[in-house]
Amino acid sequence: MSTAAALDAADPLAHLRARFAGAGSDLVYFDGNSLGRPVAAAADRLSEFVQHQWGERLIRGWDERWMELPTDLGDDLARICLGAAPGQTAIGDSTTVWIYKLMRAAVDHAVRTDPARTEIVIDTDNFPTDRYVAEGIAAERGLTLRWIEVDTSAGVTADQLREAVSERTALVVLCHVAYRSAWLADAPELTRIAHDAGALVLWDLCHSAGSVPIALDEWDADLAVGCTYKYLNGGPGSPAYGYVSARLQGDLTQPIQGWMGHADPFLMGPGYAPAPGIRRFISGTPPILGMVAMQSMLEVVEEAGIGAIRAKSVALTSYAVELADATLPGVTLASPRDPAQRGGHVTLHHERMREVTARLWERDVIPDYRDPGGLRIGLSPLSTSFDEVERGMAAVAEALR
Amino acid sequence: MSTAAALDAADPLAHLRARFAGAGSDLVYFDGNSLGRPVAAAADRLSEFVQHQWGERLIRGWDERWMELPTDLGDDLARICLGAAPGQTAIGDSTTVWIYKLMRAAVDHAVRTDPARTEIVIDTDNFPTDRYVAEGIAAERGLTLRWIEVDTSAGVTADQLREAVSERTALVVLCHVAYRSAWLADAPELTRIAHDAGALVLWDLCHSAGSVPIALDEWDADLAVGCTYKYLNGGPGSPAYGYVSARLQGDLTQPIQGWMGHADPFLMGPGYAPAPGIRRFISGTPPILGMVAMQSMLEVVEEAGIGAIRAKSVALTSYAVELADATLPGVTLASPRDPAQRGGHVTLHHERMREVTARLWERDVIPDYRDPGGLRIGLSPLSTSFDEVERGMAAVAEALR
Repeated sequence: MSTAAALDAADPLAHLRARFAGAGSDLVYFDGNSLGRPVAAAADRLSEFVQHQWGERLIRGWDERWMELPTDLGDDLARICLGAAPGQTAIGDSTTVWIYKLMRAAVDHAVRTDPARTEIVIDTDNFPTDRYVAEGIAAERGLTLRWIEVDTSAGVTADQLREAVSERTALVVLCHVAYRSAWLADAPELTRIAHDAGALVLWDLCHSAGSVPIALDEWDADLAVGCTYKYLNGGPGSPAYGYVSARLQGDLTQPIQGWMGHADPFLMGPGYAPAPGIRRFISGTPPILGMVAMQSMLEVVEEAGIGAIRAKSVALTSYAVELADATLPGVTLASPRDPAQRGGHVTLHHERMREVTARLWERDVIPDYRDPGGLRIGLSPLSTSFDEVERGMAAVAEALR
Repeated sequence: MSTAAALDAADPLAHLRARFAGAGSDLVYFDGNSLGRPVAAAADRLSEFVQHQWGERLIRGWDERWMELPTDLGDDLARICLGAAPGQTAIGDSTTVWIYKLMRAAVDHAVRTDPARTEIVIDTDNFPTDRYVAEGIAAERGLTLRWIEVDTSAGVTADQLREAVSERTALVVLCHVAYRSAWLADAPELTRIAHDAGALVLWDLCHSAGSVPIALDEWDADLAVGCTYKYLNGGPGSPAYGYVSARLQGDLTQPIQGWMGHADPFLMGPGYAPAPGIRRFISGTPPILGMVAMQSMLEVVEEAGIGAIRAKSVALTSYAVELADATLPGVTLASPRDPAQRGGHVTLHHERMREVTARLWERDVIPDYRDPGGLRIGLSPLSTSFDEVERGMAAVAEALR
């Protein structure tokens, strides 16, 4: 038996691969961390939703279930993936819009409480949309961005953050898992450092939720956002989520005050009054149809358990690193070598990786490319086999030759 | 033959009703202007999308089609429903988020150009979310709201707008069709009045697009937003759209500067640079799955033609008004009597309408209720028959007795 076959035979989650559309095909999919495969049941679930829930219940669906779905499903996600108690998570909007709303809520609050807090601390390798939104908010609110310079193969350390925060810090914006390097931040420690300086922290969970255990409440987190189309397999552009700690909800208001965040949406009266709790962070009509597919995935994640998923994720990335070391001369690891410091993907560096990626795509091996010279191998734990890793890495070796 | 049967027999669009899921059932659906029925083909289309486009093409779908879908589908919508040339419409986000982005873009531009323009003109019966967002923006930007008082059974007239605008006006916010009264605004005339005062106009098309002809380019419109779950049958919470006139795009920037509005999203470099054209008004990852169902509806709308749809809409609402006059003593019309001044719904006033609505729902007759005392009868032209109107109005008469 090959190593890969032995690893697959020993994998306690192997049986769940069959739940994913196309997971048995010849294609090697190394990009489930950009767009997860659909759970096969999602196709029927969407069709059933159109015919029965939407088609038969029609507008009554809002009274019966949909009004509460953003927070009910938010609570499910919080329980299964985020380590958060109910009432703190809502689904809707894009990650970018959530970042805007929660960043604004945080900095407006900070400046109102202490006008000297005029800095947003963010790292240079934070995901682009986080950086762009921060830049826009800094410009419109007259704040300053304080950049933590990080290497593209690493992430923000405790020492770096301690150096960056001060009595001028309004907000710290960090990624739990870095999109290029897969650096897994020490979230409890970094949160503590920000709090010791009197600042709030916004965690971007896009590249961790569904593959790495998260404990927002235990971390004493303030704010978090994330998407649902990567390890949560909600489909292209499926709605994102926002988390606001219960202890902060009453103090924060967000700028896009729409009817669905109103204390009484169907009163339709004059004057906006924010809903109590997490609902005040909702703005427009929630994207119900867009929430259907992710429900199928959350069921599979709950069945597997996030602990077992993380164990498989570590095994998958470790196997990929082992194969890279053994079979890819001249290639360097642009991710942490210690699996405890690494999320669900592995980035391999070589100056020719852009062209290697193009060649691999032609051969139905689908990794992602990230500048500079990074071949990003995303290994969505529930839908990826060790055999797939072996076949994919062999194709990388061949493409490099 | 009954009047209703004769009207159905003469209806050139009658054959298209069969395209909608459940349109042949006994249920009387008077709320297609809140949530349109699904086009039956949308169920298979979504299922097919999950299995093939998402499930097989996976991340490659972004390169192959999805990156351009918000603007390609925006152009389709613009051609079929909005009377707008390509390159001015994008799909994504909720209506509320679009309102926030375009309102901010407009007032920030106005104040930058002329600091004396510190007023947003809006009417008291504008849809709640428009009013709430305007209120929030006025507070955060130090602007003033100037309210046009309108009766809940009417809408904004040319004289009222002329009175309200001045050299202090930054932006006028108007609904094309009023959500309560169905008042159909004289959009070209109101746009002209705003422009004569040097102000921009934001049109909310939620209650008109898909049932009333719109000619944004001919009106010389500046900005518009609308949802796709009413007469465009995109499903609960389907993505909204925004229109920005080509002549303004270069001058305006919106506040939520995310990676998908960047000139080069996958450069992922430092510093935000807005894309040219309408793309700069996109923020986060576009909701592709949420755009699938509306494509089926746009095909039916294009096949029918918006002129024929409007003719049927006028006939449906006129028939409802005729039946109300004849069979509902004590009930008054809270919509314009002249069909040329009325959109696709009819509101009937009686102090007991809240309880009447509850009774109707129990009997599978589904209108909407809007304070004060308004029974709102929405008649989505393509999926509603005259027979349905007759049965529903008979049920209203009985519930009132």
